[in-house]
Amino acid sequence: MADKIKVAIIGANGYTGLELLRILAGHPQVEVVHASSRQYAGQPVSEVFPAFAGFYDGLVFSGAVQSADMEAEVVFCCLPHGASQEVVPGLVEAGKKVIDLSADFRLRDPAVFKAWYGEHKAQALLSEAVYGLPELYRERIKGSRLVANPGCYPTSVILALAPLAKAGFIEQGSIIADSKSGVSGAGRGASLDTAFVEVADSFKAYKVGGHRHTPEMNQELSLLCKTQMSITFTPHLLPVSRGILSTVYAKLKQHVTDAHRFYTDFYANEQFVRVMPVGRFPDINQVRGSNFCDIGVYVDEVKNRLTVVSVIDNLVKGASGQAVQNMNIVCGLAEDTGLKGVPVFF
Amino acid sequence: MADKIKVAIIGANGYTGLELLRILAGHPQVEVVHASSRQYAGQPVSEVFPAFAGFYDGLVFSGAVQSADMEAEVVFCCLPHGASQEVVPGLVEAGKKVIDLSADFRLRDPAVFKAWYGEHKAQALLSEAVYGLPELYRERIKGSRLVANPGCYPTSVILALAPLAKAGFIEQGSIIADSKSGVSGAGRGASLDTAFVEVADSFKAYKVGGHRHTPEMNQELSLLCKTQMSITFTPHLLPVSRGILSTVYAKLKQHVTDAHRFYTDFYANEQFVRVMPVGRFPDINQVRGSNFCDIGVYVDEVKNRLTVVSVIDNLVKGASGQAVQNMNIVCGLAEDTGLKGVPVFF
Amino acid sequence: MADKIKVAIIGANGYTGLELLRILAGHPQVEVVHASSRQYAGQPVSEVFPAFAGFYDGLVFSGAVQSADMEAEVVFCCLPHGASQEVVPGLVEAGKKVIDLSADFRLRDPAVFKAWYGEHKAQALLSEAVYGLPELYRERIKGSRLVANPGCYPTSVILALAPLAKAGFIEQGSIIADSKSGVSGAGRGASLDTAFVEVADSFKAYKVGGHRHTPEMNQELSLLCKTQMSITFTPHLLPVSRGILSTVYAKLKQHVTDAHRFYTDFYANEQFVRVMPVGRFPDINQVRGSNFCDIGVYVDEVKNRLTVVSVIDNLVKGASGQAVQNMNIVCGLAEDTGLKGVPVFF
Amino acid sequence: MADKIKVAIIGANGYTGLELLRILAGHPQVEVVHASSRQYAGQPVSEVFPAFAGFYDGLVFSGAVQSADMEAEVVFCCLPHGASQEVVPGLVEAGKKVIDLSADFRLRDPAVFKAWYGEHKAQALLSEAVYGLPELYRERIKGSRLVANPGCYPTSVILALAPLAKAGFIEQGSIIADSKSGVSGAGRGASLDTAFVEVADSFKAYKVGGHRHTPEMNQELSLLCKTQMSITFTPHLLPVSRGILSTVYAKLKQHVTDAHRFYTDFYANEQFVRVMPVGRFPDINQVRGSNFCDIGVYVDEVKNRLTVVSVIDNLVKGASGQAVQNMNIVCGLAEDTGLKGVPVFF
Repeated sequence: MADKIKVAIIGANGYTGLELLRILAGHPQVEVVHASSRQYAGQPVSEVFPAFAGFYDGLVFSGAVQSADMEAEVVFCCLPHGASQEVVPGLVEAGKKVIDLSADFRLRDPAVFKAWYGEHKAQALLSEAVYGLPELYRERIKGSRLVANPGCYPTSVILALAPLAKAGFIEQGSIIADSKSGVSGAGRGASLDTAFVEVADSFKAYKVGGHRHTPEMNQELSLLCKTQMSITFTPHLLPVSRGILSTVYAKLKQHVTDAHRFYTDFYANEQFVRVMPVGRFPDINQVRGSNFCDIGVYVDEVKNRLTVVSVIDNLVKGASGQAVQNMNIVCGLAEDTGLKGVPVFF
Repeated sequence: MADKIKVAIIGANGYTGLELLRILAGHPQVEVVHASSRQYAGQPVSEVFPAFAGFYDGLVFSGAVQSADMEAEVVFCCLPHGASQEVVPGLVEAGKKVIDLSADFRLRDPAVFKAWYGEHKAQALLSEAVYGLPELYRERIKGSRLVANPGCYPTSVILALAPLAKAGFIEQGSIIADSKSGVSGAGRGASLDTAFVEVADSFKAYKVGGHRHTPEMNQELSLLCKTQMSITFTPHLLPVSRGILSTVYAKLKQHVTDAHRFYTDFYANEQFVRVMPVGRFPDINQVRGSNFCDIGVYVDEVKNRLTVVSVIDNLVKGASGQAVQNMNIVCGLAEDTGLKGVPVFF
Repeated sequence: MADKIKVAIIGANGYTGLELLRILAGHPQVEVVHASSRQYAGQPVSEVFPAFAGFYDGLVFSGAVQSADMEAEVVFCCLPHGASQEVVPGLVEAGKKVIDLSADFRLRDPAVFKAWYGEHKAQALLSEAVYGLPELYRERIKGSRLVANPGCYPTSVILALAPLAKAGFIEQGSIIADSKSGVSGAGRGASLDTAFVEVADSFKAYKVGGHRHTPEMNQELSLLCKTQMSITFTPHLLPVSRGILSTVYAKLKQHVTDAHRFYTDFYANEQFVRVMPVGRFPDINQVRGSNFCDIGVYVDEVKNRLTVVSVIDNLVKGASGQAVQNMNIVCGLAEDTGLKGVPVFF
Repeated sequence: MADKIKVAIIGANGYTGLELLRILAGHPQVEVVHASSRQYAGQPVSEVFPAFAGFYDGLVFSGAVQSADMEAEVVFCCLPHGASQEVVPGLVEAGKKVIDLSADFRLRDPAVFKAWYGEHKAQALLSEAVYGLPELYRERIKGSRLVANPGCYPTSVILALAPLAKAGFIEQGSIIADSKSGVSGAGRGASLDTAFVEVADSFKAYKVGGHRHTPEMNQELSLLCKTQMSITFTPHLLPVSRGILSTVYAKLKQHVTDAHRFYTDFYANEQFVRVMPVGRFPDINQVRGSNFCDIGVYVDEVKNRLTVVSVIDNLVKGASGQAVQNMNIVCGLAEDTGLKGVPVFF
């Protein structure tokens, strides 16, 4: 055990924290030494969550979030936005490598952050933080002290557009992302909005025109397109626990005869992005429980309109799996360590 | 409108209250004049619940529960147990006909009530209240001022056993009711226990050996069997919104060659109990949204063991539909008024 | 019973046929005298489908589809496309009023029909058939012998755009309809594609760029816009039994300050289209089991981009309910006869 | 790769075959060299099932089932009962170690087999086959050529009763197993019975009094109890893809003060059976995707009635996971090799 990397999970009782615990239980080079939870402080992890019986048997939820008492080298911060920016600076100063799963360090421009979330309290770190999408920022993640793990919707939308965006084919003002997410994306808590009877057999759009993941997508798509992009984004709530499917539309500036090839080329060396064969489109089932993002591509050559369908497990590639992928990169491990499982596809 | 019966619903924002509103919107002889809800006081019913847009357009949720300001002749009380016994006496005194959907007036013996719920505050009414299972107590319901609407589990279990229980065939100590309920049975509220992600794709037993509906079933089954019965009852939580299926087991005292006939005879004149043909068993789908209780019967003639499967919609025959059935009886209307719809069976 | 309208349902064992039976059981001026089904020929309706026990007790599924032996005045034809065009001409000739639920008579241009479905065998009736969307064609439906009941997706998309399309505000080439349908839309049959385990917890796009409902939408939207429209349409499969939600995007030709008003004005006298208040968007739950189409409207005034969300129950307003609405119009009954129920919204 | 065990999967396109592929992809000491499927013969596994993209990339479904052309040492036979007994004898003769997932070799008495399934065609192997429940037969499995992998329901029921059955406390004639299974238990195929719309939101009992898993349970429980047992078994169909929960009732012959202790003692050294703390009962969620059987125990000390609730993933501990556990035992590997994952509990 001496050479295992010691990690801590702050806010371990939410879905992303629990999913980290699930993934890390199978990670051969990691030991979870600290899992904090105000709600369950003092209770053994495997008693509160019997799925963990036989795993983590010595691990007790800690009420304390402080960095000082932690021997962890790597800290996953699973706090809500706002709370995260209060804790992360101390952790970074204490020399921890931090993977932050909140939205607090994803937006580079403090003014944009302020417009959507309010004044940022750790602006110095905003510019230092690396946006943790390995397919775009792998090299920068390697040396980073603070990785801002991407949002679930942005992961699905940015990966869906990156190849043609980077190639310069996307027409400004034309992007529409129609995304559908499972309920775990809303977090773990007592709420009528996510009560079974309210959500089951149901389906709705929400935050039409105003979801906070929009500026994150605009930021990254603008960088890819090398011009300011402002997308139309409509999130919907699916009556499933896990999974995001984004159907992304864009006009192409010109006739592109082999759009699919741009995707297979762009992701040729990526272990976690799988481009479907021409004419096939993915199902959220086929990535469940895994770190894959699967993508299907269609171009209407008459209209020069691109339709891309991407799927991820919002809790894995959309959160905790990607966080482990980032940790692996930061720590110099093989990128897929602990992330090799086949999706639980039914 | 002059001759419509004016009714009030107290606690109208829970699932049983809302289901009453849904059913009564199609009841030709009723006008809902009052619907109380602390949570939504002052808001129009059809704004809070857009399913009601075009119905109840003048109706605003009232915060007040008092009887004095109500012109209603009939009051449906949908408060939680404990709260109901504080309100009902005043309503009865004010001359209202009360259909109480809580557990507060179902147990005849104050000592039993106390053992399961605590001291009863309106014991005088306990003995007056009529147990509102029309198939057993229709005549007494007719003249009643206070009907104690049965619990959902008891409705499914008592109707499953009544024919052979009344005939004296059920062996003492042999009844096991293995019941499975949809999530709406847990009520409408913000709770992690009924959150979509916790419940979807899941199934569990709960309150094993200690559910509060047990004494209600013991009371009625003892009366039917004319001897003290103490059943084993295990409720389970189904990942569906509506529906209860009870699989009820009992030993028969003697060989019964045509158990099925006892059921068809017993329920021959009942509009809302449908006995399935021999060899067929019901599905919760086939009663959804309706006031039916469907029953399938099997006897293992080697073991003299009875297996009965009964299904209801827990919110209709298990709550609000049965409450309307009781109101119809109390008010001298045709018993199926407002309750004639075909189940929404897919 | 003498003055009830006698109706027949051909192909009564599919979801649309069964839904017609469910709705018509509560229709006070109709008697179902004939229900055909090859699969269940000779079996009583209420035995095959125990949800109907107590309803239709004399009705036996007929294997025969011929018109000659039917005393029905109105015939609902629920056959698959292709099969319908073979049966409908004989029915019309025999003087029946026909409501056809297939795609066979929806497209006015035989060339378009041929491109998507193959040569039409009853072209003379193609031009006579009235497209059965009452909100657009009520007057023509009144005198019609043959109503082509709209597709489920087209109903949701056309109603979502009609007000601004008719007002001339929709930019050519800009319409994207991202639609999500429950599984009953795929019909009732043994198929691995719609097997529970394959569909549950899942979500996918299908027939990207090539769904047969596209020409139907293009036809009607072109007529509304008075110019040729060619929409981008992506259907998706929701893991629910009933419901369609369409998120429809379009560019507006000019700045429109009060888009919402166009909707409330356009649908002011429509009983079955409910425009949600500004800022609110519908959930498929809130129309389940009902004939409503609920619509939410949003305009991004910076981009002049319209986002409309519409929901229907695909089996009711998207099929059998609309068919009954059309029958009511054809027969001179109040349009909402038999269609007055509150949605079963949980 | 030289020292990996070569395995074959016959009938690899059903749910148990696919689950074997899923599990074995993460098994470090196994190589799948053959996967047969008539339906998909000639197609690459990862093309038919895109969840496997990146896994099994050279593996193509074979149409051939013959043993001669297989270099596999271990063969998992996932054929339907009846088909299995035709193939297994040849495999055993050819020197393969066979794990048979069908019912063909589970019943020791040919007369019992015949009564439920018809004449057995390989009776010699019936007596040789070892019932593959490691918790009861580990030693015999070690040297076996043919392991009869237990049924899903029997696994859940036998493990629920074994401790007190073996201790001699179960009263004859008193066992009732009320079991609820997810839909994948019905197998993968096109069938209206398992169509999404028919099953979703639904719940029913089926094969009441006559399910073919009954004799398997009787056989094993009789051996444990050392007297002939005949249980009452009622299976139900849950609207979930995976999972079985069995609620098992029995009368105890005498007062047992610490029933729970019998369970913790009996399973003290079992890696895959987890006894819940006193007063807690399991949820199917908490074992999903894993090889665990979790058990909760309750004794009504007044009635001397035992209620045990056990859960498994029907495709893992109820089928393919247990098959891999058996293979590990047969091959002398650590019993949990490839089976170490944390359940996907939400």
